Amino acid sequence: MAPPSAVEVSAESDTTGITLPNPLTAPITSNDIFGRRKKANKSQWGIAAASDTANFRLKSYGKKPKAKRWDHIISHEALTRKGNSLKEAAKFLATPGLISLGGGLPSSDYFPFEELSIKVPQIGHFSEAETKESGVTLTAGKHDLAEGKSIFDIATAFNYGQGAGSAQLLRWMTEHTELVHSPPYEDWRCTMTIGSTSAVDMALRMFTRPGDVILSEEYTFSAFVETARPMGVRVCGVPLDAEGLLPGGLDHILSNWDVNARGARKPHLLYTVPTGQNPTGATQSAERRRALYAVCQEHNLYILEDEPYYFLQMQPYTGPNAPDVPPPASHAEFLKNLVPSYLSMDTDGRVMRLDSFSKVIAPGSRIGWITASAEVVEKYGKHADVSTQGAAGTSQLILFKLLEEHWGHAGYLDWLIHIRMEYTKRRDVILQACEKYLPKEVMAWKPPMAGMFHWMQIDFKKHPEYPAKSIEAIEESIFFRNIEHGTMCMRGSWFYADAEDSHDTLFFRATYAAAPADKMDEAIRRLGESVREEFGLEKYVKGAVGGK
Amino acid sequence: MAPPSAVEVSAESDTTGITLPNPLTAPITSNDIFGRRKKANKSQWGIAAASDTANFRLKSYGKKPKAKRWDHIISHEALTRKGNSLKEAAKFLATPGLISLGGGLPSSDYFPFEELSIKVPQIGHFSEAETKESGVTLTAGKHDLAEGKSIFDIATAFNYGQGAGSAQLLRWMTEHTELVHSPPYEDWRCTMTIGSTSAVDMALRMFTRPGDVILSEEYTFSAFVETARPMGVRVCGVPLDAEGLLPGGLDHILSNWDVNARGARKPHLLYTVPTGQNPTGATQSAERRRALYAVCQEHNLYILEDEPYYFLQMQPYTGPNAPDVPPPASHAEFLKNLVPSYLSMDTDGRVMRLDSFSKVIAPGSRIGWITASAEVVEKYGKHADVSTQGAAGTSQLILFKLLEEHWGHAGYLDWLIHIRMEYTKRRDVILQACEKYLPKEVMAWKPPMAGMFHWMQIDFKKHPEYPAKSIEAIEESIFFRNIEHGTMCMRGSWFYADAEDSHDTLFFRATYAAAPADKMDEAIRRLGESVREEFGLEKYVKGAVGGK
Repeated sequence: MAPPSAVEVSAESDTTGITLPNPLTAPITSNDIFGRRKKANKSQWGIAAASDTANFRLKSYGKKPKAKRWDHIISHEALTRKGNSLKEAAKFLATPGLISLGGGLPSSDYFPFEELSIKVPQIGHFSEAETKESGVTLTAGKHDLAEGKSIFDIATAFNYGQGAGSAQLLRWMTEHTELVHSPPYEDWRCTMTIGSTSAVDMALRMFTRPGDVILSEEYTFSAFVETARPMGVRVCGVPLDAEGLLPGGLDHILSNWDVNARGARKPHLLYTVPTGQNPTGATQSAERRRALYAVCQEHNLYILEDEPYYFLQMQPYTGPNAPDVPPPASHAEFLKNLVPSYLSMDTDGRVMRLDSFSKVIAPGSRIGWITASAEVVEKYGKHADVSTQGAAGTSQLILFKLLEEHWGHAGYLDWLIHIRMEYTKRRDVILQACEKYLPKEVMAWKPPMAGMFHWMQIDFKKHPEYPAKSIEAIEESIFFRNIEHGTMCMRGSWFYADAEDSHDTLFFRATYAAAPADKMDEAIRRLGESVREEFGLEKYVKGAVGGK
Repeated sequence: MAPPSAVEVSAESDTTGITLPNPLTAPITSNDIFGRRKKANKSQWGIAAASDTANFRLKSYGKKPKAKRWDHIISHEALTRKGNSLKEAAKFLATPGLISLGGGLPSSDYFPFEELSIKVPQIGHFSEAETKESGVTLTAGKHDLAEGKSIFDIATAFNYGQGAGSAQLLRWMTEHTELVHSPPYEDWRCTMTIGSTSAVDMALRMFTRPGDVILSEEYTFSAFVETARPMGVRVCGVPLDAEGLLPGGLDHILSNWDVNARGARKPHLLYTVPTGQNPTGATQSAERRRALYAVCQEHNLYILEDEPYYFLQMQPYTGPNAPDVPPPASHAEFLKNLVPSYLSMDTDGRVMRLDSFSKVIAPGSRIGWITASAEVVEKYGKHADVSTQGAAGTSQLILFKLLEEHWGHAGYLDWLIHIRMEYTKRRDVILQACEKYLPKEVMAWKPPMAGMFHWMQIDFKKHPEYPAKSIEAIEESIFFRNIEHGTMCMRGSWFYADAEDSHDTLFFRATYAAAPADKMDEAIRRLGESVREEFGLEKYVKGAVGGK
């Protein structure tokens, strides 16, 4: 009898051949995954069971180089962490007939939950209205695993788990990572996080020591700076343009690093948000990334690639009143049009990539994952075992039901395309409002290609009171005029990587992620009023274009 | 029209008057809580809204003393942590008519969840079989808050939240804390955790610096030691007996602390599990706690009171074949019979109490809370904002539906009484098996009064090869004999607070929390066989008592 074809074996509907950005042996398609899964070791589905994400990869990586070692930059804390000695005993649990009075796990008899259900969209009918109408209810029972109904259930998910997360959901994450990024070295692994905020905190504790300086975009995610500073770690801003970090700027800082003048060893860590960066909205092109990776190799920098907005890459902006660009025709086209990740070009294993469900499923899940070399992932997991204890089982079970058992990989790509088109619409609304209301004589912006943020520059030199009125004072005035006019945007200065550096730019950040279209339009109109007032410009007149 | 009585206002069924351990103004009963809740500020139910747990307390604490300040022991990291500057902007969100393009929160339009349901027990019908039969399904809709159906919903819980947790569930935690512990100082607060493992990690980062020595039971929770050591913090074991830590032992260590000999400043932190301690199962009596608190005052120690097993206090053990002690007749009696917490006697505000749902609801919720002075709780929350980001919204919503909207405080006390009776049964099974199978000539134990662990001492001095065969070698032999016989217990040496100290005791830890009754009986029989073999004793003969 002939083996079943991939399509027959697949539980999924996708039949478009997806070519990976970096094919190594053969291209993987999302419908291949179910068909090609290795025979699963059933013990890994059990309560608090360990798993190895190497087993979840489909391709042979044996011929690829192994990742570089990072012992020389890993902190004393991370190097000396031994992990939980009681887990040593766990290896005996497989002994046939063994009755364990060992681990202090409560019996699921006392979990007061018999069933958990979620109502979620059908593939292709993703809107809130459609979900209300045609949504599907997925139910997890308490003992589905023992009863053979599923490989995950309440009794398992609601008990203690590994810091690395359950094999059930980790498998899905590993496969998704291989499908999208296919890292070009042998010993890459995934491990679950409780979200990227925590992953950054844990990565900094692994890769820095007090007194270090690390590198980032000169305008950066403020929580990142606020996480690093109390650890005694300063952030040095690298200049950027509309395509993000400048390779020359990065090289210049590192090539001219003066340990005495800087009071710190030469930086060994770069934190970057390459796609839809917060707050600038900048997205690094493929060429930019390759150039930056080469600089990182040159100076042996380790890279934290924080990518919450990776799948908020949008359709090209065509300008006001121009026809929309049609959605990607296939999963292959969708994936091909994504800018390649650092992970996908990481021949050295010098990248820890941070993925998150916060922007594409829901922040309240508090689940993400990292991908990095086995050395780094193992240390991360040991820290998780004695701190976060891993992601909430409630969330793991909910995402497993949705992503593994309902949508599958292909359905999830459909969902991501839906999100892409929705964010494109939102981005276009804010850009059209900006075209209409903002005074171009003093304001400038580039259409964001990804993420949630629109970054608007203000030419403070044209302010009637400049330089008597400082950049910060003008920024503050506009902020408060905004509040008076009934709108709020974030001040650029709140995002300085190093607030003690001198700055000669003035920006505001607006998000198009949250407000409805009519409110966004009105909020931008109010912003235009504030800036005109502050600069003593003529008021906006309806019907005029470009604020004339 | 007369105001409705507390019973009429209450959504709960309990009408037993519960007198608090430390009544300050008037006794609070669980059915008072709904009737006496202060008029709630509705804005605190919103997405990522801030709240102040001081508002959730029912009694006036104004006349009580304020907590002592702890700046002198708080770490540089915690003292310099500023929290998130973007949250500064949040205060303008209340401006009427304001349209915010500020915070980068995704729209709930893109959360693919329309409803979440859980099937849970009715009050008084708590067993798994009864829940299957008569369980109630609780449903959270996506927009229940906006639609006036509930104060919590998917759109809110699944978005970003405060590191401190949602007001919706924090209120419940604060009320429960007041009901059970009523801390005797003015400025106590609660804040949510992602479980006590993380809370311990965060507390150590707040209260220690590398080189410190902290204090704990000489046999202690191994993950605690493994959390502290990589931070450069050593744990000094305090002697204990069947009632836990010895006040004289604690005082002796502190009074004789030699900074030079010890190579560390005098300890300022005590970590203790006062109830059903892991691994010893010891429960400190009320008198023992008062004596220990006085020693802590004397030496100005800060106390981490880790209490996962507080509500696993059991009925008195009456011996084999004796009639069971009937369950508590009322909530008042149940609460009165609990050993008072350190928090309830903490006139100084020197206690951080760690509560957890892991042992009484489900570990996979990854939710607990701490209670401490406002100073400490504020610093904890700021750390959470840049690390854990707070408990998963999925879990918060599930627990809110169960605890706040379904069971209420009275129903939860009923559940806790159910758990108490169940653990009593389990504990009695293991004790009866020990009576039957273990060789009393070389083994001794005390019946545990709380928790999940039975701690059995072995008289290594009676071993035929002692002292040629060391304590550790005898322990190891018994461990492996156990595996051969098909049972597993944890080795006492795995729980040494300081493995480098010399030890002259030999213990094994068995849990009665997980295995069914018949398996527990068999596992203990096998343990008896192993020990008899190791010591060259006669085999157990069925029908004989006490292993004779």
